[in-house]
Amino acid sequence: MSAPSIREALAGDLEAIIHLHEEDELGSHGDVWSAETQPAYEAAFEAIQRSPDNRLFVAVDGDEIVGTFQLTFIPNLTGRGTTRVKVESVKVRAVRRSGGIGAQMIAFAEDFARTHGAAAMELTSNKSRKDAHRFYERLGFARSHEGFKKKL
Amino acid sequence: MSAPSIREALAGDLEAIIHLHEEDELGSHGDVWSAETQPAYEAAFEAIQRSPDNRLFVAVDGDEIVGTFQLTFIPNLTGRGTTRVKVESVKVRAVRRSGGIGAQMIAFAEDFARTHGAAAMELTSNKSRKDAHRFYERLGFARSHEGFKKKL
Repeated sequence: MSAPSIREALAGDLEAIIHLHEEDELGSHGDVWSAETQPAYEAAFEAIQRSPDNRLFVAVDGDEIVGTFQLTFIPNLTGRGTTRVKVESVKVRAVRRSGGIGAQMIAFAEDFARTHGAAAMELTSNKSRKDAHRFYERLGFARSHEGFKKKL
Repeated sequence: MSAPSIREALAGDLEAIIHLHEEDELGSHGDVWSAETQPAYEAAFEAIQRSPDNRLFVAVDGDEIVGTFQLTFIPNLTGRGTTRVKVESVKVRAVRRSGGIGAQMIAFAEDFARTHGAAAMELTSNKSRKDAHRFYERLGFARSHEGFKKKL
């Protein structure tokens, strides 16, 4: 149970990353790794890799992927042209939760965002994830906005 | 008071776009067009133009810019690799509000997002903007998430 290291995700990490999505307690997104779903995940992974504005990370402990998150850099006019970073798809292996990995990932994300020119960070979290809300508030995030979603 | 047309923003629209930001009733972002701030806005505008994932739009009535919004395409693994679009910096000229321009812009945004491969749309809105929340719910958005922000 050492502190994991954080690095950018490689194609070989994809199945392990999707297994972290499978563990998600809400499970409303239907994420599962199978022969049927694999091509769509591979295409999305390649789209993330291709995008200059997106970075996908994993937290690794030994040989095991124990966490993941994605950063999206968004150039924007608001706030006199402040680049902001959106944190997306933050997942920690179920058996490793409450062990500091999430806080380590967010601290890494903030440092990475700042180093790469961002001055603000944002994220949304489903209203049912009360523990996550307390977690982000503890890390200095303000719960200032309502988050809206629509399927197209 | 005809229906405006919607098109991608050009460099010559930038001052008018920032004037829409200046009218924002919250005003917490300190947005103002001046000799001092102009270079930062120009740099941000160029960053948006350069990014393959970002598109900045204006609603134009005759010679007048009456609205603006930005779309950010986000490749993502969640939901079996669903590309989502974040709508950002939605502004309508104060004297033209409640005239259907906002709804026209969001309908345009949904169509543009769908046509360009996105299957979900999302946005956040400051908790104090009660009218905006009703507006988005009327347009079929679910207020399902808490939105967190942090300055870096």
